[in-house]
Amino acid sequence: MKPDLQKHTDILNRISPYIHRTPVLTSSTLNEALGAEVLLKSEHLQKMGAFKMRGATNAALNLSESQRNKGLVTHSSGNHGQAVALAAKSLGIPAYVVVPTNAPESKVEAMKGYGAQITMCEPTVEARDREAQKIAKTTGAHFIHPSNDSDVIWGQGTAALELLQDYPDLDIVLVAVGGGGLLAGTCLAATAFNPNIQVYAAEPELVSDAKESFEAGKIIPSTGAMTVADGLRTSLGTINFPIISEHTSDILLVSEEEIKDATRWTWERMKQVIEPSAGVPIAALHRYKHLFEGKKIGLILCGGNVDLRELTF
Amino acid sequence: MKPDLQKHTDILNRISPYIHRTPVLTSSTLNEALGAEVLLKSEHLQKMGAFKMRGATNAALNLSESQRNKGLVTHSSGNHGQAVALAAKSLGIPAYVVVPTNAPESKVEAMKGYGAQITMCEPTVEARDREAQKIAKTTGAHFIHPSNDSDVIWGQGTAALELLQDYPDLDIVLVAVGGGGLLAGTCLAATAFNPNIQVYAAEPELVSDAKESFEAGKIIPSTGAMTVADGLRTSLGTINFPIISEHTSDILLVSEEEIKDATRWTWERMKQVIEPSAGVPIAALHRYKHLFEGKKIGLILCGGNVDLRELTF
Repeated sequence: MKPDLQKHTDILNRISPYIHRTPVLTSSTLNEALGAEVLLKSEHLQKMGAFKMRGATNAALNLSESQRNKGLVTHSSGNHGQAVALAAKSLGIPAYVVVPTNAPESKVEAMKGYGAQITMCEPTVEARDREAQKIAKTTGAHFIHPSNDSDVIWGQGTAALELLQDYPDLDIVLVAVGGGGLLAGTCLAATAFNPNIQVYAAEPELVSDAKESFEAGKIIPSTGAMTVADGLRTSLGTINFPIISEHTSDILLVSEEEIKDATRWTWERMKQVIEPSAGVPIAALHRYKHLFEGKKIGLILCGGNVDLRELTF
Repeated sequence: MKPDLQKHTDILNRISPYIHRTPVLTSSTLNEALGAEVLLKSEHLQKMGAFKMRGATNAALNLSESQRNKGLVTHSSGNHGQAVALAAKSLGIPAYVVVPTNAPESKVEAMKGYGAQITMCEPTVEARDREAQKIAKTTGAHFIHPSNDSDVIWGQGTAALELLQDYPDLDIVLVAVGGGGLLAGTCLAATAFNPNIQVYAAEPELVSDAKESFEAGKIIPSTGAMTVADGLRTSLGTINFPIISEHTSDILLVSEEEIKDATRWTWERMKQVIEPSAGVPIAALHRYKHLFEGKKIGLILCGGNVDLRELTF
């Protein structure tokens, strides 16, 4: 897969009726602290609360009509399951989501709210795969991988594309990396728009598999450690890794404390509910300040789905 | 005080360099649930996180230069103290805030961060008044009451004025009522803009003094009960009460549970950190749905200052 501005723009136009063009927020406090200009692409305000809606919608729209009508299937404990469920709902087709028994109840409720048919399974990669393949076989539904799927990658890249359409003179784009779909899509969109732009990724120290893979030149699987940035526990994939390797300037590690501080700051000062995964690139801005000083940076806030039922006022 | 669109517009233009023109948010989920169209004027995104910045700035700007240079003084445990502190900072003049010893530490820290000189006092109305008057005498600083001050009332009304400039065809404006400054200012702005518009207020059942005062035709003091909507525990004042009496259609009561649910919904679904006081009018939308069905409603989200240090991820 190569950067292709025309193709990427066509994809954005195709999915536009089904997604929000999310706002871009700024903070003078943040800019002053960094000596930089940061544009926050607010995917926590995307439909279903995360950028995942983009990839799932693009994958669904890319199917032939007869294929599409058989529905979509995936396995997920979180945002991707909600994205597939809502994309299917907005297209009027069935969604089947295999959910591990340890998934947060609020996310399962959200998937059901979007009309998905839920199958519970043991919380192992094998059980999830097996159940999803079984459903795909029985129903003919199309399987959508959360991050290692070309259509998903192109779709996720449309967040950066919108950001660059609004701010064509960005020096840097900065995103979190988990499974690699958002990062690979961002690489495609950003370098298609401007071959000289720098793409940085940020990752929790606790699950530094993307950094290690990037340096080793081959995929090193995630340990799945329990970082607070629960969206970033997964491994890179064979489709997204070559794109990431070619177009990413560096992968920046941040500590759990830095992630929590950045997330809390965003809630408290910007009044925006982001999930800790979205706090990861904000934490990187502070820790690697020297990389960003004097620059114009587009940062993607990947999502805002957190379980607030424990919240007490 | 009478509605006066020209005067109100002049005031808005005068304070504009010192405040944010806050965005107006919408939620299709909310609109569908209500069968109405709700425009959420987002004062939680105002400077220092609440509409209070408008009134404090207007009161400060209305002083003569020599008077102004002596500074501003007030007593407050919360948003008004922060507003006076930040207004003074942006005008380059001193601020003195008398703070009761039971005030949340985070709010006191914020006032200090804006450069205010803090004097702690016992948490009684008498002690607060006494200390503030003492400082006013010693320093010559001008005392700004949080809600019962003409300039403050005109200033708070500019939130509704901006909202109506953006959406001139609103049928209803809905705000929370505590001390009455925002409600009175909203009454002035809204009825000046459109004499046929309806202004509703919402109030916690636990501190229903505004509702009781409205029905009795005289000010009945607040019991100061510990509603979760901590911004709404205060009593109406002699300057704002006549305006409220004349121009408000009704005051709608909501329960503590309804306030918490509405606040949590706004965090979870809209990803916006609002304080429980701002959840009060959203709760009223649901409880008094029959009043709002088929209408276009401007709702002021009054603020977003909550103490998040207890928050665990």
